[in-house]
Amino acid sequence: MTRFAVLGTGRIGEMHAEIISQQPDASVSWCYDLDGDRAQATAEKVGARASNDVDAILGADDVDAVLIASPTNTHVELILKSAEAGKPILCEKPIDVDINKVEECRERLRSFDVPLQLGFNRRFDPSHRAVAEAVARGEVGPLELLVITSRDPGPPPPRPILEACGGLFRDTTIHDFDMARFVLGEEPVEIYAMAANRVDPIFAELNDVDTAMIVMRAESGALVHINNSRRTNYGYDQRVEAFGSEGMVRSNNHRPTEVSRYSGAGTQRRDELLYFFIERYRAAYEGEIRDFIGSLNEGRPPSVSFEDGRRALLLSEAAIESFRENRPVTVNFD
Amino acid sequence: MTRFAVLGTGRIGEMHAEIISQQPDASVSWCYDLDGDRAQATAEKVGARASNDVDAILGADDVDAVLIASPTNTHVELILKSAEAGKPILCEKPIDVDINKVEECRERLRSFDVPLQLGFNRRFDPSHRAVAEAVARGEVGPLELLVITSRDPGPPPPRPILEACGGLFRDTTIHDFDMARFVLGEEPVEIYAMAANRVDPIFAELNDVDTAMIVMRAESGALVHINNSRRTNYGYDQRVEAFGSEGMVRSNNHRPTEVSRYSGAGTQRRDELLYFFIERYRAAYEGEIRDFIGSLNEGRPPSVSFEDGRRALLLSEAAIESFRENRPVTVNFD
Amino acid sequence: MTRFAVLGTGRIGEMHAEIISQQPDASVSWCYDLDGDRAQATAEKVGARASNDVDAILGADDVDAVLIASPTNTHVELILKSAEAGKPILCEKPIDVDINKVEECRERLRSFDVPLQLGFNRRFDPSHRAVAEAVARGEVGPLELLVITSRDPGPPPPRPILEACGGLFRDTTIHDFDMARFVLGEEPVEIYAMAANRVDPIFAELNDVDTAMIVMRAESGALVHINNSRRTNYGYDQRVEAFGSEGMVRSNNHRPTEVSRYSGAGTQRRDELLYFFIERYRAAYEGEIRDFIGSLNEGRPPSVSFEDGRRALLLSEAAIESFRENRPVTVNFD
Amino acid sequence: MTRFAVLGTGRIGEMHAEIISQQPDASVSWCYDLDGDRAQATAEKVGARASNDVDAILGADDVDAVLIASPTNTHVELILKSAEAGKPILCEKPIDVDINKVEECRERLRSFDVPLQLGFNRRFDPSHRAVAEAVARGEVGPLELLVITSRDPGPPPPRPILEACGGLFRDTTIHDFDMARFVLGEEPVEIYAMAANRVDPIFAELNDVDTAMIVMRAESGALVHINNSRRTNYGYDQRVEAFGSEGMVRSNNHRPTEVSRYSGAGTQRRDELLYFFIERYRAAYEGEIRDFIGSLNEGRPPSVSFEDGRRALLLSEAAIESFRENRPVTVNFD
Repeated sequence: MTRFAVLGTGRIGEMHAEIISQQPDASVSWCYDLDGDRAQATAEKVGARASNDVDAILGADDVDAVLIASPTNTHVELILKSAEAGKPILCEKPIDVDINKVEECRERLRSFDVPLQLGFNRRFDPSHRAVAEAVARGEVGPLELLVITSRDPGPPPPRPILEACGGLFRDTTIHDFDMARFVLGEEPVEIYAMAANRVDPIFAELNDVDTAMIVMRAESGALVHINNSRRTNYGYDQRVEAFGSEGMVRSNNHRPTEVSRYSGAGTQRRDELLYFFIERYRAAYEGEIRDFIGSLNEGRPPSVSFEDGRRALLLSEAAIESFRENRPVTVNFD
Repeated sequence: MTRFAVLGTGRIGEMHAEIISQQPDASVSWCYDLDGDRAQATAEKVGARASNDVDAILGADDVDAVLIASPTNTHVELILKSAEAGKPILCEKPIDVDINKVEECRERLRSFDVPLQLGFNRRFDPSHRAVAEAVARGEVGPLELLVITSRDPGPPPPRPILEACGGLFRDTTIHDFDMARFVLGEEPVEIYAMAANRVDPIFAELNDVDTAMIVMRAESGALVHINNSRRTNYGYDQRVEAFGSEGMVRSNNHRPTEVSRYSGAGTQRRDELLYFFIERYRAAYEGEIRDFIGSLNEGRPPSVSFEDGRRALLLSEAAIESFRENRPVTVNFD
Repeated sequence: MTRFAVLGTGRIGEMHAEIISQQPDASVSWCYDLDGDRAQATAEKVGARASNDVDAILGADDVDAVLIASPTNTHVELILKSAEAGKPILCEKPIDVDINKVEECRERLRSFDVPLQLGFNRRFDPSHRAVAEAVARGEVGPLELLVITSRDPGPPPPRPILEACGGLFRDTTIHDFDMARFVLGEEPVEIYAMAANRVDPIFAELNDVDTAMIVMRAESGALVHINNSRRTNYGYDQRVEAFGSEGMVRSNNHRPTEVSRYSGAGTQRRDELLYFFIERYRAAYEGEIRDFIGSLNEGRPPSVSFEDGRRALLLSEAAIESFRENRPVTVNFD
Repeated sequence: MTRFAVLGTGRIGEMHAEIISQQPDASVSWCYDLDGDRAQATAEKVGARASNDVDAILGADDVDAVLIASPTNTHVELILKSAEAGKPILCEKPIDVDINKVEECRERLRSFDVPLQLGFNRRFDPSHRAVAEAVARGEVGPLELLVITSRDPGPPPPRPILEACGGLFRDTTIHDFDMARFVLGEEPVEIYAMAANRVDPIFAELNDVDTAMIVMRAESGALVHINNSRRTNYGYDQRVEAFGSEGMVRSNNHRPTEVSRYSGAGTQRRDELLYFFIERYRAAYEGEIRDFIGSLNEGRPPSVSFEDGRRALLLSEAAIESFRENRPVTVNFD
């Protein structure tokens, strides 16, 4: 039985707490949130206790692991505190939107030997994962083209969230960068980004973009395309397509049902796509938790490392540089 | 070069004439129709001559084969005249809606040795045909379940056509009976039909039905289901599904494009199905002509025989008997 | 919080126990099974206690409701015991395979006023349910054709299960009869069944069939087709198609992922269908539990009644009679 | 009746000749090819005469229009000769692979007032065209993302064809550049191209690439992605996806049948995609001919102009420059 402390019980933290509480070999023992009522509410739902004293929680005997789902700008501090307390960590992405803080955190983590898994949940989505596994076992031959479509349903998130999120490339595309690295099984070496403000003026006001197209070249010569939008009117559009000499494998969209409709207005009409990440990636979040627990039980390193989080952010930084200077940028992970 | 006389240049006859004229090894030399202007119009389109003298046409040197697409109640007469003239015949279905006339025609044809192909065009539809071929080569193992969906787009045909057509089972289901025999590769031995008047009161007025479900048992024990409607609001619904121990093969619907639409009103919305037989079965009609020409050139018997037309009609008769007496009926082809 | 006693902890009982234990407002307090170890194992998984004393369980204060998932031939006894104890009941289908025992149970239940929900879980499948709801709100217009495809993945169940199950019509088709009633929103009045032994000789040995096609007529004139097989090699084939003047709504099959594959061996190849009911109908089983808890909390009658179970079985009996006597049978629910 | 001279009767010229000969209001009167036997063979098929004297053909009274399908390096000469002869021209793409020759041709054409349509046949594909029309009428709102997938089936064309074709960007991507301009309804202003040699060493030997990813920005800010490969093993992969605030419209792939297969090896398996342009774009080639004839009859300018051909080639040149210098390139159409 792995007993978790859940730090941060907003929408995602609460979801994690519920998923943990439904596992036969895991439980939530403590919940923490700046908003004490919210922590209390989640704690009650999952049979845990709430506390506003992080240090006490991290020192508690009934805490075998920590799940960090607090606001992004607190991740580094909570990672380091948890590492000091010797507690294995599952931390939501991104590590931070400031690459300097990430590099500093990386330095300080060298002195600890604590398992840390980063929350790139999409790696555990059964459909996307099947694509990565097909590529890894050579089903499509040497990978030649990888196309990732990743568009959020609208409307845009509230302004405070947008202000803190680090912009499209660090907030959204970072998932796609990680997916690209996951499916490629190798590193991108060059990147070029085009982007625009097409969805809502708020993005321009925040000096951000809402619509983007990226191309990358990997070490092997494989080419990668990512396209993003901050708004669809038909649901959460999430696709991965891997192409090579032996064929193509695609991970397509998910809907709440398998119903199709036929009428004078058209045929084979399906539901809107599942609305957003909590619904679309429910199985992925559960897979992530199970993989993390499994890594602790089996003593193997987590499947998604701090370095994976750092590299995805470095790709975000490279995309931003490419977009701002309108030139291809060589990726440097050193 | 096979030179055709086209007898009957209504909608279907005209289509046949055009298809023939587009073949590199065939042409239309003569067109006949009770409506002389209509015959003339088609003749001009396809570079043929028009005449209102059937006997002269059948005696002409530049007629290598006859295509009969006149009203159903003239088929038998034209078949026999053509046979007498020694001209190979491609005749639209059905032979006649009166089984007695069909039996009589069968008797009289014994004295002639003229190739006759019946126009069960759907056998030449590439999708349906692929199902039949898959079954024939054992791809699904011994056939166990065969499901045929066959629904016409609405509204119902004009009253005079309905009055002459012989009713749903002889006019529409007859195609499905032929398809069943084609895919089964064996004979149905028992049939039960349920039917109703659901689409339009005109069918009840004509003592006809517009909605039907049929089950049949084949010699081997394979079971067949056919369902029919005289009206859909989403196009011409034509499907064949063959199931056995080794799997399932399905022939699905056709649309004018491969476009799909995504919006707040739903995802993956496709066009309406192709509207009706001339559009949906264009390739089948062409395949039929090519197969007929091929059989003449190669000296092999036509792929679809008079007997195929008779047996499909006998199944229609059995369905009517089953429906009227509300009991399963044993099929007798003798 | 609704505290359940789970009676019977075989594969389905265990699944129910786990689903209950994952609900925020429900728990399992007691598990019972003839196999005490099995009861104990499930109890441990879900934080319950095991006991081999049904009467003690039914008398316990911490039991608010009973879930019956024991062998079918014990259902009636456990229903009556639970009713006597005044505990609301969620009972797996069928009530019994012997219609006489069902009628007797029905009589004896008249003296109790205990909520009883029958486990026709498929009514809670989001896809099938969407079809029923679309029909109910008139989306397809008056229903004219209803086609239910329902084929189990192979190989056949072990002999003892087959011997006890009551045969194809009472064991498998009973679900489809309930689905037909659910989507129709009215009663079938006539039924005709064809069936065969095509899958495995064991079914013939047991005087059973493994392959069937059924047609039914409903009060309104709507026609229904059901086709069944005891074995597919591509997964659990479960489809519902409702057709009327305003269009068609279909509930299609489910797969573990949304992955499609393209290669020289074909395009758009998908996974096998989800293997069997526990996987395919997981959401339905959860919906069923939630609906049952909701009915208790809200004081409304259960959505699926004893009478629904009885009528589905009466349709099974009518199908058997039709098949044995090879004639259409009028359905009598009195 | 529009009577064509077909100049060049290789595979594409022969197809054009056959399509023309099947139109009710068009015919082929003359065929020309450097290979006289080939010209003769096509002429016989379509009821035309063959000649090896281009000037005589262009001067003939029974030539109302010219279709140029000769080797690319003869296009400019034949365009100018036809223009001098005052004959309307339908010329296969590209005008030439040498932009200087195209500019010179453009200058010289100023002195003639002869209709000239360029053979960007894909504009007439019913599926792609439906996407362009949907965008034009605002169905997806302002266009934000346009994704074009365009991959040829393998193996690579023979070396002499590759040597003459001008490389991937001028030979293949030029179609996609035209499609982008067609769907956008505005001009790309900036382009960046990544490319690689992944398919076959022959491309590297010819200093060519076989795999490419392109991003473009249009005047309005809409972003465009094109990905190309010279080889798939599953058929000819041709997709167009247009996305905006009001939704998405996609043109998907075509197959010879609508058959799907289910077995232990997977479900919903479809045929390989139609193999190559003559099969896949048959309807487009016919639509192109019909549109050209229509423009002549109606006295309207051709739908696809010389300038369209020039601009697509200028985009190819910009892509090559971008790829060679590894930087985004501003597009200049002056």
